[in-house]
Amino acid sequence: MSRHSRPAIVGEVCAEFAGTMILILFGVGVVAQVVTAPDGSLGDHDSIAWAWGLGVTLGVYVAARISGAHLNPAVTLAFAVFKGFEWRKVAPYVVAQTLGAFVAALIVRVGYADLLASVDPGHTIKTQFVFSTLPGNGSGPASIQTAFFDQVVGTAILVFLVFALTNAWNNPPMANLGPFIIGLVVVAIGMAWGANAGYAINPARDFGPRIASLITGYGGALRDQNGYLYFWLPIVAPLLGALVGGAAFKYLVDIHLEPDEDEAERDEAVGEPVPETAAERPAGPTT
Amino acid sequence: MSRHSRPAIVGEVCAEFAGTMILILFGVGVVAQVVTAPDGSLGDHDSIAWAWGLGVTLGVYVAARISGAHLNPAVTLAFAVFKGFEWRKVAPYVVAQTLGAFVAALIVRVGYADLLASVDPGHTIKTQFVFSTLPGNGSGPASIQTAFFDQVVGTAILVFLVFALTNAWNNPPMANLGPFIIGLVVVAIGMAWGANAGYAINPARDFGPRIASLITGYGGALRDQNGYLYFWLPIVAPLLGALVGGAAFKYLVDIHLEPDEDEAERDEAVGEPVPETAAERPAGPTT
Amino acid sequence: MSRHSRPAIVGEVCAEFAGTMILILFGVGVVAQVVTAPDGSLGDHDSIAWAWGLGVTLGVYVAARISGAHLNPAVTLAFAVFKGFEWRKVAPYVVAQTLGAFVAALIVRVGYADLLASVDPGHTIKTQFVFSTLPGNGSGPASIQTAFFDQVVGTAILVFLVFALTNAWNNPPMANLGPFIIGLVVVAIGMAWGANAGYAINPARDFGPRIASLITGYGGALRDQNGYLYFWLPIVAPLLGALVGGAAFKYLVDIHLEPDEDEAERDEAVGEPVPETAAERPAGPTT
Amino acid sequence: MSRHSRPAIVGEVCAEFAGTMILILFGVGVVAQVVTAPDGSLGDHDSIAWAWGLGVTLGVYVAARISGAHLNPAVTLAFAVFKGFEWRKVAPYVVAQTLGAFVAALIVRVGYADLLASVDPGHTIKTQFVFSTLPGNGSGPASIQTAFFDQVVGTAILVFLVFALTNAWNNPPMANLGPFIIGLVVVAIGMAWGANAGYAINPARDFGPRIASLITGYGGALRDQNGYLYFWLPIVAPLLGALVGGAAFKYLVDIHLEPDEDEAERDEAVGEPVPETAAERPAGPTT
Repeated sequence: MSRHSRPAIVGEVCAEFAGTMILILFGVGVVAQVVTAPDGSLGDHDSIAWAWGLGVTLGVYVAARISGAHLNPAVTLAFAVFKGFEWRKVAPYVVAQTLGAFVAALIVRVGYADLLASVDPGHTIKTQFVFSTLPGNGSGPASIQTAFFDQVVGTAILVFLVFALTNAWNNPPMANLGPFIIGLVVVAIGMAWGANAGYAINPARDFGPRIASLITGYGGALRDQNGYLYFWLPIVAPLLGALVGGAAFKYLVDIHLEPDEDEAERDEAVGEPVPETAAERPAGPTT
Repeated sequence: MSRHSRPAIVGEVCAEFAGTMILILFGVGVVAQVVTAPDGSLGDHDSIAWAWGLGVTLGVYVAARISGAHLNPAVTLAFAVFKGFEWRKVAPYVVAQTLGAFVAALIVRVGYADLLASVDPGHTIKTQFVFSTLPGNGSGPASIQTAFFDQVVGTAILVFLVFALTNAWNNPPMANLGPFIIGLVVVAIGMAWGANAGYAINPARDFGPRIASLITGYGGALRDQNGYLYFWLPIVAPLLGALVGGAAFKYLVDIHLEPDEDEAERDEAVGEPVPETAAERPAGPTT
Repeated sequence: MSRHSRPAIVGEVCAEFAGTMILILFGVGVVAQVVTAPDGSLGDHDSIAWAWGLGVTLGVYVAARISGAHLNPAVTLAFAVFKGFEWRKVAPYVVAQTLGAFVAALIVRVGYADLLASVDPGHTIKTQFVFSTLPGNGSGPASIQTAFFDQVVGTAILVFLVFALTNAWNNPPMANLGPFIIGLVVVAIGMAWGANAGYAINPARDFGPRIASLITGYGGALRDQNGYLYFWLPIVAPLLGALVGGAAFKYLVDIHLEPDEDEAERDEAVGEPVPETAAERPAGPTT
Repeated sequence: MSRHSRPAIVGEVCAEFAGTMILILFGVGVVAQVVTAPDGSLGDHDSIAWAWGLGVTLGVYVAARISGAHLNPAVTLAFAVFKGFEWRKVAPYVVAQTLGAFVAALIVRVGYADLLASVDPGHTIKTQFVFSTLPGNGSGPASIQTAFFDQVVGTAILVFLVFALTNAWNNPPMANLGPFIIGLVVVAIGMAWGANAGYAINPARDFGPRIASLITGYGGALRDQNGYLYFWLPIVAPLLGALVGGAAFKYLVDIHLEPDEDEAERDEAVGEPVPETAAERPAGPTT
């Protein structure tokens, strides 16, 4: 069926790499632009929310056809647990996502090197959050418990809505505009769930750029404002949140869904115009 | 026809609960983020308008297929009065909506507990409007008459436009993008009709979080800045506004609509691609 | 063909009235909210740009099926001159548009009466621009020549793009999302062409609310900051701009368009999914 | 096949001229509005990002059917190198794009003449960046190397995403909403990649308005803040970036794409609903 001699996983890994790279080129880029400009002259927290969300939209368009565009290990985990995504692909996906985020963060690091050095010559925690998240976000540090709870909730909302927006039986956006709406999910999470932990909600988004900053002068990149190791939290809490969000969707929505008979008829006639932003397509509810 | 043994109302109630929960996780969440951050550093009133609107969009996507996604007792009332929505379902819908809003507000209350305690240790009216509305919004209190008029107008606009955007004979958005446009209605209401009473325009949105704050330390949650009972206004005025908006749509637009014959032909051929964001679908104008 | 005994013009006039009313409920409403709030706490000029644009989107959805949703005498003129819109309907459309704008402005006047009286007890020019435009916008008065040129250009851009976005041969947005994109035209005009004359670009939008403010306490509503009669400019210049924009579209784009043969085939098979946001639909290029 | 006696290139050149003119009427217009208003009262850097992006969306809608809507010599180059766009058309396209940008900038120059003279009577570098870009953007000058790297990256992102969003095999947005999403690419680039060189990412966008300002009083328009010739950088670096972005798309995504068999079937039945925002349509992957 494939016109290539390559195994499918090669393309999938390239797509996850490229899509996550696009996401981070915008996401880490916008924080760099806002943080290094004087007095909010080149954007503010809303710019950050919009550009992260648009980065998600555009990254998903890049990768959706080939890999399903998870771009996020928490999403990959949720699809494996709840939607039958093959477990053997989880590790390659996660590595590709993290590597894409890492490379993109390096490109931002180079492009904004002068500006970062100018506003924070010591490359301290003052600009380290350009690359990776910290507890608290503009309002002083949050407690570890609060940051953990926040990341569980934020990622649960993300996965719940990704499931809602890609389930063919739940009337998702058509005309392949699912990626646009999924980007808006991240815009809204940035506006409503960004105060306690900088809304990582994606282990690859956080860990890849964290390593990129660590090896380019940000010696404290693994630690929080108090010097405690922190890098694990935006990995562990989002993975847990993905399970919470996936389970909530399953019991609140998924088990109540039925195929639409009208739609089934139409599909027979003209092919199915539903989006393919997730790998679950033919499955429908998977209960 | 159902593949489940459960009665349909169980799924509908779950969907209204889940959709309203998503709405409030973003809506109350964004106000919490903006109010607890120093100097507008994590958003401003426009962020509030956008995140509430996106919350509506996403809540509607969650619930539309199963319950029609009213997410708002005023909308449920309008569909019952003007569009033949079954009266026996009104009470369960309203309870589910209010409960979804209540649970979501509790989650925000927990997630933002530290920040709320930090900027308002007494849990006074200073941060109570994170959860529920007050007369006036940033410009000092408005009179009760003004707040009441404002809520009637705001909800009338909402219901008028929900009817316009979900009536199959009035050329609604297709490709199931109605929920996106309906979210934009709420963005615009927040920007243009948010000054006098904080645009509740939804009794469940206001009362559920009000109770959540009342039982978690906000002793004054039922009263306004002058100590008068206020909680009834964002319930009564929106319900009245829904009737005004529904009647205005009926006589200004609905009675002039006719089926599009071209569209009817296409529908026969390939099934009907109109959105199902409301329960009225097969009815068309219901005069 | 009609299922009503009423002549079609009754429905068309109702739709233009209702659509323009929705436009102005948001457009004048957002300026009232921004102007009466202290220190930009409830929005800024960008909120104004967004809410005006969303008001256009939503007003067009209300009226498009019935009347074509001109909502603007300049657009009606352009359709009559360039697209064969019947001249006998021009006057009723213009009256309905102006009346819809007038009624909507009265509703805003009532809803914001307390706030307007509070920040501008004399109802002077300081808040009169909530309702109607003035030369200059935040940067001091512009000369009449500059304001006139600005309104010609702004309306020319609007009409040029309305023609581009509703011409079935020019690949307009499908899935009936034309109204959304047309709203974005007005968002962008507000951001880029709002400095010299407050972007009326619509005689009904300006004159209806101007009269509403004149009869409710704003004695100077017909005049500019220097006391000269000004109300005529946002009527005359947009009408002229509409002719400029329509002619520019005709010679730069329209005469080069051809029917798409593939599309024609598809239309035969499944009906035509192009938007009907303007009355020109069956005409295609009208050269 | 053509119903005109004119050769196709005449329409294509007119469309590229008109589309780029629309782009610049918004793009240069918004910077003029923001820069000449006191204290950010008529917009800020986010307004600039949004209006540039919306200008792209609207310019693409104007021209897409006729010319493919490149509107940018870097995009034209990328299509010639990677997608088989005819080399003999490259020069006429580039001239038309630059001329459209030049004429639009003159219109802005006239409309904002009073305001520009008021805030910058000498027509110095203080307002010259209304028309064309400079190294640095609000944060002091960037080095030439940084500006060059920034423009290569920004344009590579643009071309990578234009290829992703217009490749029929990669599930682009349907319902002809590609132009909307492509506009969002430019919004996000403005927010994330605007700090070092003002995101020209388009030689025509930069050079046309630069000449317009040069001949209307901005004597220093070809030079940067230090007096060095700079005009060449926003020409050369974007062209190079286009090659980088096109190659990255080819090897990371394009070579892994395959036709969707389901889609092929549907297309046979009802015609192909994919957008035509680029000339590559029938080609699919061009490796």
